[in-house]
Amino acid sequence: MNLTGGRLVSRDALFLQPTMSHKPSLHTSISPALLHLYDLSNSVVVIIDVFRATSTIASALYNGARCVIPVDTVPKAIEISRNISGIAAGERDGMIAEGLSHGNSPLEYTREFIENKTLVLTTTNGTRLLQMALDRNADTIISGSFPNLSAVCDFLVSEKKNVVLGCAGWKDRFNLEDTLFAGAVIHQVAKHFTVHCDSSLMAETMFMKQKNKLHEFAPKLTHYHRLVERFGLIEDIKFCLTPDVANVLPVYAEGKLIAK
Amino acid sequence: MNLTGGRLVSRDALFLQPTMSHKPSLHTSISPALLHLYDLSNSVVVIIDVFRATSTIASALYNGARCVIPVDTVPKAIEISRNISGIAAGERDGMIAEGLSHGNSPLEYTREFIENKTLVLTTTNGTRLLQMALDRNADTIISGSFPNLSAVCDFLVSEKKNVVLGCAGWKDRFNLEDTLFAGAVIHQVAKHFTVHCDSSLMAETMFMKQKNKLHEFAPKLTHYHRLVERFGLIEDIKFCLTPDVANVLPVYAEGKLIAK
Repeated sequence: MNLTGGRLVSRDALFLQPTMSHKPSLHTSISPALLHLYDLSNSVVVIIDVFRATSTIASALYNGARCVIPVDTVPKAIEISRNISGIAAGERDGMIAEGLSHGNSPLEYTREFIENKTLVLTTTNGTRLLQMALDRNADTIISGSFPNLSAVCDFLVSEKKNVVLGCAGWKDRFNLEDTLFAGAVIHQVAKHFTVHCDSSLMAETMFMKQKNKLHEFAPKLTHYHRLVERFGLIEDIKFCLTPDVANVLPVYAEGKLIAK
Repeated sequence: MNLTGGRLVSRDALFLQPTMSHKPSLHTSISPALLHLYDLSNSVVVIIDVFRATSTIASALYNGARCVIPVDTVPKAIEISRNISGIAAGERDGMIAEGLSHGNSPLEYTREFIENKTLVLTTTNGTRLLQMALDRNADTIISGSFPNLSAVCDFLVSEKKNVVLGCAGWKDRFNLEDTLFAGAVIHQVAKHFTVHCDSSLMAETMFMKQKNKLHEFAPKLTHYHRLVERFGLIEDIKFCLTPDVANVLPVYAEGKLIAK
């Protein structure tokens, strides 16, 4: 029994090595309904809503929007945008929300349209998750999607803080596109962090399996199906899954996401 | 625009085909915290707690236990087992629970020990998920793990009802061993169901990637690490990941799991 005990302890010591190296931790929250399991107060939280809020935020800021103000309701979007002469935009269930004339397509926000303007955005999942991260006193909040993958990774490595990758999902359901993005981040930054969570292991494994065929894989996703009837969506999806085509870092402060 | 609309509609119709075939649905709940998203009232719910509750339940019933009574607290386990001259057993945080002399190892429940006896079992995650499924009026509750994989699949196919694969996780956190088992089930039964959920797609993809090396993959799992210091655990894990070594179907009725 001593022998067995000894063997197990040494195996365990080996396994624990990353924890003992005092690297910051990285966890992946695969649904907003699981966010409460993680300590956000000393973490950088990455809000991930690939189809399409955080892709749209990257697109608007990359094309020169002054800032993006995320809000939870359509009336609030309309009111705030009126007061500051901004653009009220958003979606509900994937469609342009009633009462708004601009939606949640990253391709709407060209430089010609959005430069030097403020976008006031309300969405089904991403905006809600951001509010949850605020309520849970996140240390720092940024937003990420494939279009700004490198900017997110560079920031996480430079900050040297704990990280929680927060997937927005769909009304609390797990979705794969957000998890695939989490996996892409983990694949790039893992060596700088202690990564010891099955969600992160799963996310990275799924990303590594699909990374060379993300566009071909997309039609299998429930969210792709949910959105596929909308005009122009296929181009949206291409954009949302393409790394670094809008490589800015949206950082949240005082009610606004601003390109850092 | 008509053309584009037409193309998208026909693509969508193709994608919807399984839904229109009126096969029952299959969903995977990857954490107890997500169980409320699924309608259990017309579903067979499979309770999955691979390390180790549902492996232990399969083992005990396979080896001739009269039934397994799942309970939520240690005092309840002791009281009930006294009244019926049963075996009180269970774990907390992976260890034999204080006050009990039998734990949650499937290897404890040999035929010599458990035949014709009643096992009163309390565990951290599996028992709790079962109670949640009861509270949500599940139509039918069974339990599954690799040791009884085929019995679970055969039953799901024969019942022709909707299915929710309920992963017990670890204190609401996602874990991979339960999801891998869900993936194994999906891989076997998918053609009999409408499977249109990212959790199920992920589970099957992860299982297909690891199916020939489950034992080699196990040391990467957080739960493996959590339990690895316990004496005998490696043999437990081998058992828990081996298909059909205790191929019974535990069905829940009137407070008991009985081999059907």
